[in-house]
Amino acid sequence: MSVDEALAHLRGAGESELPSVTLDHLRAERTGFPEVIYCPGKRDDEVAAIAARLAASSGRFLATRATPEQYAAVRAQVPEARYDSDACAIVFETEALPRVGLVCVVSAGTSDRPVAAEAACALDVMGNTIARVDDVGVAGLHRVLGHVGALRTANAVVAVAGMDGALPGVIAGLTDRPVIAVPTSVGYGASFGGLAALLTMLNACAGGVSVVNIDNGFGAACVASRINHLAASRADDRGPAR
Amino acid sequence: MSVDEALAHLRGAGESELPSVTLDHLRAERTGFPEVIYCPGKRDDEVAAIAARLAASSGRFLATRATPEQYAAVRAQVPEARYDSDACAIVFETEALPRVGLVCVVSAGTSDRPVAAEAACALDVMGNTIARVDDVGVAGLHRVLGHVGALRTANAVVAVAGMDGALPGVIAGLTDRPVIAVPTSVGYGASFGGLAALLTMLNACAGGVSVVNIDNGFGAACVASRINHLAASRADDRGPAR
Amino acid sequence: MSVDEALAHLRGAGESELPSVTLDHLRAERTGFPEVIYCPGKRDDEVAAIAARLAASSGRFLATRATPEQYAAVRAQVPEARYDSDACAIVFETEALPRVGLVCVVSAGTSDRPVAAEAACALDVMGNTIARVDDVGVAGLHRVLGHVGALRTANAVVAVAGMDGALPGVIAGLTDRPVIAVPTSVGYGASFGGLAALLTMLNACAGGVSVVNIDNGFGAACVASRINHLAASRADDRGPAR
Amino acid sequence: MSVDEALAHLRGAGESELPSVTLDHLRAERTGFPEVIYCPGKRDDEVAAIAARLAASSGRFLATRATPEQYAAVRAQVPEARYDSDACAIVFETEALPRVGLVCVVSAGTSDRPVAAEAACALDVMGNTIARVDDVGVAGLHRVLGHVGALRTANAVVAVAGMDGALPGVIAGLTDRPVIAVPTSVGYGASFGGLAALLTMLNACAGGVSVVNIDNGFGAACVASRINHLAASRADDRGPAR
Amino acid sequence: MSVDEALAHLRGAGESELPSVTLDHLRAERTGFPEVIYCPGKRDDEVAAIAARLAASSGRFLATRATPEQYAAVRAQVPEARYDSDACAIVFETEALPRVGLVCVVSAGTSDRPVAAEAACALDVMGNTIARVDDVGVAGLHRVLGHVGALRTANAVVAVAGMDGALPGVIAGLTDRPVIAVPTSVGYGASFGGLAALLTMLNACAGGVSVVNIDNGFGAACVASRINHLAASRADDRGPAR
Amino acid sequence: MSVDEALAHLRGAGESELPSVTLDHLRAERTGFPEVIYCPGKRDDEVAAIAARLAASSGRFLATRATPEQYAAVRAQVPEARYDSDACAIVFETEALPRVGLVCVVSAGTSDRPVAAEAACALDVMGNTIARVDDVGVAGLHRVLGHVGALRTANAVVAVAGMDGALPGVIAGLTDRPVIAVPTSVGYGASFGGLAALLTMLNACAGGVSVVNIDNGFGAACVASRINHLAASRADDRGPAR
Amino acid sequence: MSVDEALAHLRGAGESELPSVTLDHLRAERTGFPEVIYCPGKRDDEVAAIAARLAASSGRFLATRATPEQYAAVRAQVPEARYDSDACAIVFETEALPRVGLVCVVSAGTSDRPVAAEAACALDVMGNTIARVDDVGVAGLHRVLGHVGALRTANAVVAVAGMDGALPGVIAGLTDRPVIAVPTSVGYGASFGGLAALLTMLNACAGGVSVVNIDNGFGAACVASRINHLAASRADDRGPAR
Amino acid sequence: MSVDEALAHLRGAGESELPSVTLDHLRAERTGFPEVIYCPGKRDDEVAAIAARLAASSGRFLATRATPEQYAAVRAQVPEARYDSDACAIVFETEALPRVGLVCVVSAGTSDRPVAAEAACALDVMGNTIARVDDVGVAGLHRVLGHVGALRTANAVVAVAGMDGALPGVIAGLTDRPVIAVPTSVGYGASFGGLAALLTMLNACAGGVSVVNIDNGFGAACVASRINHLAASRADDRGPAR
Repeated sequence: MSVDEALAHLRGAGESELPSVTLDHLRAERTGFPEVIYCPGKRDDEVAAIAARLAASSGRFLATRATPEQYAAVRAQVPEARYDSDACAIVFETEALPRVGLVCVVSAGTSDRPVAAEAACALDVMGNTIARVDDVGVAGLHRVLGHVGALRTANAVVAVAGMDGALPGVIAGLTDRPVIAVPTSVGYGASFGGLAALLTMLNACAGGVSVVNIDNGFGAACVASRINHLAASRADDRGPAR
Repeated sequence: MSVDEALAHLRGAGESELPSVTLDHLRAERTGFPEVIYCPGKRDDEVAAIAARLAASSGRFLATRATPEQYAAVRAQVPEARYDSDACAIVFETEALPRVGLVCVVSAGTSDRPVAAEAACALDVMGNTIARVDDVGVAGLHRVLGHVGALRTANAVVAVAGMDGALPGVIAGLTDRPVIAVPTSVGYGASFGGLAALLTMLNACAGGVSVVNIDNGFGAACVASRINHLAASRADDRGPAR
Repeated sequence: MSVDEALAHLRGAGESELPSVTLDHLRAERTGFPEVIYCPGKRDDEVAAIAARLAASSGRFLATRATPEQYAAVRAQVPEARYDSDACAIVFETEALPRVGLVCVVSAGTSDRPVAAEAACALDVMGNTIARVDDVGVAGLHRVLGHVGALRTANAVVAVAGMDGALPGVIAGLTDRPVIAVPTSVGYGASFGGLAALLTMLNACAGGVSVVNIDNGFGAACVASRINHLAASRADDRGPAR
Repeated sequence: MSVDEALAHLRGAGESELPSVTLDHLRAERTGFPEVIYCPGKRDDEVAAIAARLAASSGRFLATRATPEQYAAVRAQVPEARYDSDACAIVFETEALPRVGLVCVVSAGTSDRPVAAEAACALDVMGNTIARVDDVGVAGLHRVLGHVGALRTANAVVAVAGMDGALPGVIAGLTDRPVIAVPTSVGYGASFGGLAALLTMLNACAGGVSVVNIDNGFGAACVASRINHLAASRADDRGPAR
Repeated sequence: MSVDEALAHLRGAGESELPSVTLDHLRAERTGFPEVIYCPGKRDDEVAAIAARLAASSGRFLATRATPEQYAAVRAQVPEARYDSDACAIVFETEALPRVGLVCVVSAGTSDRPVAAEAACALDVMGNTIARVDDVGVAGLHRVLGHVGALRTANAVVAVAGMDGALPGVIAGLTDRPVIAVPTSVGYGASFGGLAALLTMLNACAGGVSVVNIDNGFGAACVASRINHLAASRADDRGPAR
Repeated sequence: MSVDEALAHLRGAGESELPSVTLDHLRAERTGFPEVIYCPGKRDDEVAAIAARLAASSGRFLATRATPEQYAAVRAQVPEARYDSDACAIVFETEALPRVGLVCVVSAGTSDRPVAAEAACALDVMGNTIARVDDVGVAGLHRVLGHVGALRTANAVVAVAGMDGALPGVIAGLTDRPVIAVPTSVGYGASFGGLAALLTMLNACAGGVSVVNIDNGFGAACVASRINHLAASRADDRGPAR
Repeated sequence: MSVDEALAHLRGAGESELPSVTLDHLRAERTGFPEVIYCPGKRDDEVAAIAARLAASSGRFLATRATPEQYAAVRAQVPEARYDSDACAIVFETEALPRVGLVCVVSAGTSDRPVAAEAACALDVMGNTIARVDDVGVAGLHRVLGHVGALRTANAVVAVAGMDGALPGVIAGLTDRPVIAVPTSVGYGASFGGLAALLTMLNACAGGVSVVNIDNGFGAACVASRINHLAASRADDRGPAR
Repeated sequence: MSVDEALAHLRGAGESELPSVTLDHLRAERTGFPEVIYCPGKRDDEVAAIAARLAASSGRFLATRATPEQYAAVRAQVPEARYDSDACAIVFETEALPRVGLVCVVSAGTSDRPVAAEAACALDVMGNTIARVDDVGVAGLHRVLGHVGALRTANAVVAVAGMDGALPGVIAGLTDRPVIAVPTSVGYGASFGGLAALLTMLNACAGGVSVVNIDNGFGAACVASRINHLAASRADDRGPAR
């Protein structure tokens, strides 16, 4: 290919796209959900343009870590989009997916709520039934022990914790369901922005724990939704769970 | 348990609680003091609601790292609550606990005062007599040497230092009382937000030093109060200390 | 409780156990598989005694990171135990569990084999059907692209990679199944013993990736087995997968 | 040399220079481009004075990471200077250098645009033909695979990516041209300000990747421009590239 | 002071000491126990010489992290010295101190035994009654819950754990006694030689936890012994504990 | 695809390959040189089998970081293979590639020789003319200044340095050719295994420096060879360099 | 000492001091200069009170890292105090110390000026003759080579550099005078707030370099002033330097 | 310069040198002492060849971190060379330099002796009078306080400490002489190979401390020797110190 041909090819490939954006239109087919918009570092008008494009092509979108200003820009183009202020997420769906199975979202402290909310919001729009259990850290063990029934019923548990990050390991010792651990940046000093909780979770003595990035409620939701749909879609073929 | 039963169970368990909050009403019985409110990451109304609930159930509460705005929200619900602006703490007690024993709170520099103040405030509301010694870092050894008598009389010493964090190790070589070291984030550059002082304290050559998180005056107070009450309550049985 | 009562209680509680060992006899009931023996830091005779006790109580055991010497000590007590020298694991099962579902174990390079082998060995003894795909790192993309069919059929994918750790994120963009990423310590210099691969995986741009500790093939197997059994047991109720 | 002689010598050496500034007037002769102004930590008037001096002596200058305020100060002295707001760079050239060869600037995500823009802006003023390919991260492999022709035609590829930083390694496996990898600080949590992407790139399994500092689009441009001019100037002697 | 005077002074000061050694003969008076010999980095003959000197002056000594070779050298000079091979410690006491109070030494896993043994050995020679509870990590909560009575009776709890390091925080939520947490280097990968456990403990959500250096069973014993003697000596004045 | 089909497909795909190995037979076509064998973590027989396969299919191979034992195993299968004991590399070529262009390999100290040797060995087998300059660190500037002519003639400079890693930045200020910096693990203490040199190089003030992994002489050779061939092949069309 | 006596003693000791401040009135006698005020973390009124006390007792003071607001508070109490806005320092001296000897303060880039200014300001008030050399980083070696005469005349060289931090090592190879290296936080990305420059300097290959904390111009001045006074005071006894 | 000319030039430049070695024959003139041989990473015959060359050209040499095998190789060529087994250094001097001034070498613990010995050995061969003070760590302050006279008489103090690294800061508060701090790798766990001591020293609150690399006794000696010679040579002009 000559230099001129290469430049022509690139110009052509970009014509059907937004500037600086290359949408992955086949992601829903490959991975089960359309491309999600990660808002930080994008201008308000970029977020809005991508959202409008996805709304048109997929009938649904999720934008995470969105500011109210970004939401305003989106709503100007997609008026039906709604804003989950706890999760800082923008959601749009022309037709809601059926909510199936059960994912339990557990948090260790009230300060972890924004991350748990992001997980719950993403799980919801991805079509999962959700149960929330908040503020049940290991400093008062009876609080999490009181929810063992639910932890053994869900297809997956998303366990959110900052500071010492001990909760997911304790949960994994109480259930045979997969536990997706989400460290949060809640804490100070030697929490090093969530590093302490992350390391705790990676070193959990109990089996069945896997970990996502610090504060990544969305990422945990992706994993849990894949598991829950796998279990639930098969269960759907045979009738209700027993 | 079926999915529906699990959801019903969770909804029921939450009815008597605040949203996103699961209070640990038995903590005073188990550990000697009611649950303490860690304010960062909580909304003002959440702090106020938790404070009101604790005031009603326990007759006392402590809220650490509170902003003036959070204090205003609390005072609207618990008018007798007071704000310690040095410690950034909100305190409420219907009946003050008796102050017993002696804990010495020592700081290396004037800039460490907020952390020392948090320790002193928590020790006070937890019912400990306190002695403060400020600005006696090891660059001028005669300053701390002048207080050896007090350091050998207290049941526990809380030693607060930033930068090189050398003070607690020097103190532990001068007394046979347990020293709880608190690294602070005072410093710059290679202090790495208090990491240098933390490592110094963990590597103290003198025996008798244990360490809490960076800037965690409250945590040091918890440890010192447990020690002081253990020594003082037993001493109380036999009359005044000698 | 008095000091004498406490000492008596502790002595009593230990009588039915091995010295320094407190077996968790109910772990299989709670989490689906008996306690697993982590061999480093244990003496050969300790490993053998724990193995014998588990063989008697559970009819099966798995010991990870075992040396040949530890295996010799175990075989003296449990002659039917076998040693997987690729995985450095000791396995014993009086009756093999039925192998169900499908888990795909993928590795990026030949040097990652020991970790992939540990995952495969643990998945096998936990009762999972396994497919192995080795040496398909992203430097030659056609290698992993040639296995997309399998990656979309398995209930879970265990993706093992050292150095840049890029493989799990690429796989997660090609399938809708959960991907459990295992960073390995393969590499040198700025791989920092697997830290580079660990961070890559935690920051994977594609959804559906969760991560376990560096070189923790066993931990990935625990997660994948939980997922696979969840999907497969439900599928079993309804006949073969379609 | 006596103290007085030393002081006199230093005063003399400084007379022809700006205060606190020692310009390297021979840099273009030695390295192919005049000294570039790194704006952070410099006062607005300092930036303007250096820019004016370089404009006079070299007929061109580039100032990176400039604020709009710094640009305003520069424009007051060099009215023809222009501001690239995507790249945050100030550019001035009395006579544009001929644009030669081809450098491909590829970015993984829309949020990486400022860094890619800095690379492109610097490459442009240094006299290179540029092709931009944006938002082609490895979560959707078909996007980068669609540009293989261009990647095999350019004399150098600048590959910009945050988060997992996997893109440069994938590109280097698809082409025989040198790939200059630029990690960006895009991400959160365990991206540690771009450290994760940096380590990924340093550990790339594919050969042909070298790395510059986090967010250092300018540094990548310097390397790529040296390579491109080396190839292109020689090619120029023999006619157009084939 | 002139240079010659300084040299003379230094030579004089060293005459009564061993080469390269300056013993702290007053440490027992100041801090309650004679200087302890840290063996790594010392030659066998140095350890033996210091031990002999301490045996003569204090009637007791403790040498930590001693090799069998160092023990052999010591025994040649102090035949009554004994070696605790679990703790790798050399102990000598002409007259045993009375063992008073109660300190509970708890470990999370069998592999943590050497560190727990060092703590127990030091506590013993320092004159403390000890209760050991081993292998009660949080993956099987019922194990530690079964020992709550002892944890609430001891004057101090030394809690030893590697990997996730979650045990001390769980214990501190179950008792009102001070908990001295000892992270161990047990683990691999992202345990980073005990850093993960250290950070977990520094970030423990439950109050009452303070931390010593990784693998520092001896340091925890120093702190616990100071607390236990403080409580026990006062209790002794009033008769047996109730 | 059914589970059985997936298993059959995988078994089929593996038949023509070595166990645990998936050779990338098209790498030379895509990137200019066949797959290179990274020896650590591979068994001797694996290295030999891969080497034999590559010798048959490509007529040449390079194996890096090979032990003498691995070389013995290779020579048993490929008797003409030779061992470069400075570089710890095994080389085989049925027909040597023409050596073209010029790459300068510079090292800062004698202790850096193994890394420089690996770069030189790889550059040689990849068909590049090489000039070596050793032991010219910046503590004696006149040493590197004496080689400026060569540094300005080569198409690329590979600059190898440990400890402070300052050499590549100094070189880049003296030439307009691309400088590929290789940090080495030579040093101790705060060199942190080469991290210090790595960071120095990433922060080089002079333009034109890009960096590869610590001790990665091979990686630098890949980059330099791509640049040198690009320049030389074009130059070849027009006659000798001037 | 009883608890009451201890409290009384502490109250008494504090009466002659400011609240939270324990001045070290003998520091000038011990170390050659009065206590210096580190302003961050101190309230404006605290800085002013300490300054006034030192002005009264010592006739001079230096306050580093002072804000304009802190200066205003000081000037209200000590009107003759002056503010060095480059160094962010407040200086007061009733009688200037004689400026003796020679210290050379060299900086690598214009952005390093605040740190170099702090060093120069402190050296000045401590009574040292100073020579400034700015913006002579190693990217253009001729700049520093032009000042070799001064570098060989000064009693000490303070070398300030950010980014790669290579300048002090190059200087130390050119002179036999002690070089005090000051890393600065100038840079971004993998400079990690000055860590890169710090490590470079600690690993300098040339002898004669010692290092102070990142951005610690004041600390370098203390070291250089001690050296310069030692050399100059002795030289003063024998007449002018030759 | 053509490629052939460059190769010829390089070959010529190397003829008078050892292979892979470029000696800096003018270092003594520039910096006061000939080039020193850093032995790690060099072959025994290389060390011997460099030593012989330096012995011939300079009449003295110092080789640090030498193994007994390297010493044997050296002695075969330079029979008068001697080995300091405490410092692991090889020393040769045809005529000893006069020992002038006074440098005090202080260490905190007996385990720090090898580093202190390296400093003392290097100071000796560089022509400095030395005073040693060993094992005076801050856990027993009276030990260092007993040597204040010497610390105030020396021209420079080299202070060596591992673990908490607190000694240099304490010394700097007791004297007005420059203190060169040497962190050692003595310690374990959170000492992180000497990082803790390094950070402590960089953050020393007392003025007058500068720091060299971990375990770098030689580097501290270089700095102290430069200072001591500066002071002593000037003092020599005026008669004995007073």
